[in-house]
Amino acid sequence: MGQDHPDSKLFPRATGPAAKMVAEHEKEESLKLYSGWRVLLVLLEKQIPFQYIEVNPYHKPESLLKLNPRGLVPTLEYNNQPLYESTVICEFLDDAYPTTKRLLPSDPYERARTRIWIDFVTSRIIPAFHRFLQYQPQSAQSEDEGLAKVRDDFVDKLKQFTEEMDPDGPFFLGRELSLIDIILAPWGVRLWVFDHFKGGLKMPAGKVGERWEKWLSAVQETESVVSTTSEKEHYLPIYERYAKDTAQSELAKATRAGKGVP
Amino acid sequence: MGQDHPDSKLFPRATGPAAKMVAEHEKEESLKLYSGWRVLLVLLEKQIPFQYIEVNPYHKPESLLKLNPRGLVPTLEYNNQPLYESTVICEFLDDAYPTTKRLLPSDPYERARTRIWIDFVTSRIIPAFHRFLQYQPQSAQSEDEGLAKVRDDFVDKLKQFTEEMDPDGPFFLGRELSLIDIILAPWGVRLWVFDHFKGGLKMPAGKVGERWEKWLSAVQETESVVSTTSEKEHYLPIYERYAKDTAQSELAKATRAGKGVP
Repeated sequence: MGQDHPDSKLFPRATGPAAKMVAEHEKEESLKLYSGWRVLLVLLEKQIPFQYIEVNPYHKPESLLKLNPRGLVPTLEYNNQPLYESTVICEFLDDAYPTTKRLLPSDPYERARTRIWIDFVTSRIIPAFHRFLQYQPQSAQSEDEGLAKVRDDFVDKLKQFTEEMDPDGPFFLGRELSLIDIILAPWGVRLWVFDHFKGGLKMPAGKVGERWEKWLSAVQETESVVSTTSEKEHYLPIYERYAKDTAQSELAKATRAGKGVP
Repeated sequence: MGQDHPDSKLFPRATGPAAKMVAEHEKEESLKLYSGWRVLLVLLEKQIPFQYIEVNPYHKPESLLKLNPRGLVPTLEYNNQPLYESTVICEFLDDAYPTTKRLLPSDPYERARTRIWIDFVTSRIIPAFHRFLQYQPQSAQSEDEGLAKVRDDFVDKLKQFTEEMDPDGPFFLGRELSLIDIILAPWGVRLWVFDHFKGGLKMPAGKVGERWEKWLSAVQETESVVSTTSEKEHYLPIYERYAKDTAQSELAKATRAGKGVP
């Protein structure tokens, strides 16, 4: 190794409210989470005691590599055994701690329908977010067709997602926050990056746009989300590297190569 | 439309034992399955009554399009509502019919670990199978490096999967067939296509190779698998179009474009 990874200075150490949350979960607990915003939200919503260990992806702690040689994040340590993959960990926590707030519907059909849309977030919305964010203009023309295409594709996917929401809401399944809201939350609350870097994002006017705004406001005002968000200034240099398509994370590289989320 | 899709003559109408199974599940039932080998195996293993409707992907039945406008297969019709995505449907059936054989472990940690490896089959093994099958030689040399690369990559993924198996087996989780065996079964039992089209496939000698063979034999001899398999001759023209990389299915096109399973 020897040389630092080009993104290693972008270590997303929490600032603002998130720094306080991190400090509150530093003490030893048998259940340990190595990074992962979505899993963090699940743990907070379900009021499960846990220790939080922030991982700099370019300088991974030995304890993580011992648990999971590939050093994937998020990794959950449970009874000294590793679990990885964000969605799997989130569902596991809902299964293994059934006495607090349930995050998936109890009806098998509704649970399956929710899983279809969780998969839609993971395999469709998030890749479209990154194709839009990492898009590089092909010419100096004021109207860049390529940019419009990746933007419209992303908006279209958000629209499809919104059309599946409970009509009253404010959350996807109705009055209560559930796992599907958490799965999209980290990208949802960062849509301001497109205003900052890519000329903005416009949801269609009318019913769908209003329903989307209602969802987004409800998620942004959720206590667990508020308490785990860093200050905007903290995120800017991280997203700038994506927006200029110079980020070197696995996700950034997969997007550049036209592949899905690794 | 007007013109027939180039693959439309390859409609995989069942032959041999599978034709008998199809005939036995033609009568009206409220639970309907539109294609999908893995879901079929789950229904048979759990002894759930169902109606099976074979779908020619190039001439989709109206009843399917009414239920699911994108006409995705497999689609399950349950209480007049659609469910799609193979893995989601399989898990749903295990949830919704809990009184017969369970196909996922009851322990939350073991269930989560199984889901990680189900995802590995879907996102790693199956795409590697298709990259190998659709690979086109780049030169007339006898040793084609590109072919060796896609073959080794596929073998390596099977090896990783095998290393996670219960040491005694014969199935992935031990003595009983479970969902993870079913998820890989349709590709596992078709490995002969590589002998036929791509110069064969060699698992490493020794423990891993032996464990793989033990798994494969057990799956191939499972009654539900035997009773849903068509004759080899039936599959040859289908796989030939993949092997020559002229197949036009969504999966074939995604593989050609270097993307994951659509």
